[in-house]
Amino acid sequence: MKRMKATVSYDGTHFAGYQSQPTMRTVQAEIDKALVKLHKDPTSHAVASGRTDAGVHALGQVIHFDTPLDLGDRWLMALNVLLPKDVRITAIEQVSKDFHARYGAKGKTYRYKWSYGELQSPFERNFAVHLGRWNPDVERMNAGAVYLIGTHDFTSFCSAKTATSNKVRTIRKLTLERHQDELILEVEGDGFLYNMVRTIAGALLAVGIGWDEPEDIQKILEAKDRQRAGKTAAAHGLYLLEVTY
Amino acid sequence: MKRMKATVSYDGTHFAGYQSQPTMRTVQAEIDKALVKLHKDPTSHAVASGRTDAGVHALGQVIHFDTPLDLGDRWLMALNVLLPKDVRITAIEQVSKDFHARYGAKGKTYRYKWSYGELQSPFERNFAVHLGRWNPDVERMNAGAVYLIGTHDFTSFCSAKTATSNKVRTIRKLTLERHQDELILEVEGDGFLYNMVRTIAGALLAVGIGWDEPEDIQKILEAKDRQRAGKTAAAHGLYLLEVTY
Repeated sequence: MKRMKATVSYDGTHFAGYQSQPTMRTVQAEIDKALVKLHKDPTSHAVASGRTDAGVHALGQVIHFDTPLDLGDRWLMALNVLLPKDVRITAIEQVSKDFHARYGAKGKTYRYKWSYGELQSPFERNFAVHLGRWNPDVERMNAGAVYLIGTHDFTSFCSAKTATSNKVRTIRKLTLERHQDELILEVEGDGFLYNMVRTIAGALLAVGIGWDEPEDIQKILEAKDRQRAGKTAAAHGLYLLEVTY
Repeated sequence: MKRMKATVSYDGTHFAGYQSQPTMRTVQAEIDKALVKLHKDPTSHAVASGRTDAGVHALGQVIHFDTPLDLGDRWLMALNVLLPKDVRITAIEQVSKDFHARYGAKGKTYRYKWSYGELQSPFERNFAVHLGRWNPDVERMNAGAVYLIGTHDFTSFCSAKTATSNKVRTIRKLTLERHQDELILEVEGDGFLYNMVRTIAGALLAVGIGWDEPEDIQKILEAKDRQRAGKTAAAHGLYLLEVTY
């Protein structure tokens, strides 16, 4: 058996998230179905770096799986013909047997996308969150973001349903930039709690539109209370960009 | 009653085309439903410049409708809140009572989009046709396109099901250009027969990949036989860009 590491891109629009759930269409179920077919082995399955929620997209999700097959440079083609078109394996390589997509992950990068303009193009509706009448002050948002960079207890910035007891995480980079008609948040850290990026996006937007001051981010962080960070930003603006090992 | 002219953008992916059909989701049915609600009048409806097929997109479809309402600059908002997010009214203005979206159309511009690359991004799958292993010669395609520019009988370049007896149309402009990872065809003419742009796209791709010679386009045109032009290109690469009056 060899261990393979693969990079996966998916449009999350028509998925009930990454993780398999009975009767729901999930990315994991589609990947496992493809592996089962390819290997003619009902136990064949992949392990991902982590789950993503319904509607969340990925450009660089990472999975691993074990295989007795030796497909050389036909791996990409072999898997992609078995996958639906909203999931693509974009890279694949053999790795050592101790590589683990989840436990070996050292960092993740996410992007959050808003779109400007009075109207949202129908072609953007599932891929960016429409700002509508809001014109957030990007400098204020970056000033608020500064308080989140570094190692903190992110209890205030994750879902109240988060099972993990240790809520200390390190954010290495957090930037907001306007690119033409899009406002892009990029965040890189050692790991993220459940709903953490979307909670951060929501809290920084509140700063951008003047509901909160940049310094309030520090206060919310210190409060260690999820109620303080306001509304979680919608799923369809979020992209898992990269997982590093 | 006033007559309004509106520009409509739609993502055709989840529509069975523009024209209303019983039990199917269509753009026309969504627009008429919004007009009926807004006017509280079950006969309220719009007339479009023409239909588009299932999967075909629009950035500049044009419709007209009659209304007793005077909404001033609230028209866009009023209609868009009643429409699903894959249909947006992007512009609206009052026009004279003799304006007619269909009979008054003097010209239309369509775009056809292919994407390059070994893999097609899941985000592009409904919005461009994947070239896969093909790397068409764009110069050859433009050389073939030249034969189509001007006034011709386009019997060979429309669906055999076309009801219209007069198949003479004028193409004013027809260009193919590569923009990064996309191959873009743009065609402007006085009007187009059923499936005409997709048949042209298919025939020019056959020239680009060496199945046909540029001069064959002239022979296909002269044959006045739909069988000669080869495969109709897929619907999801096609966009109605503009209608002129």
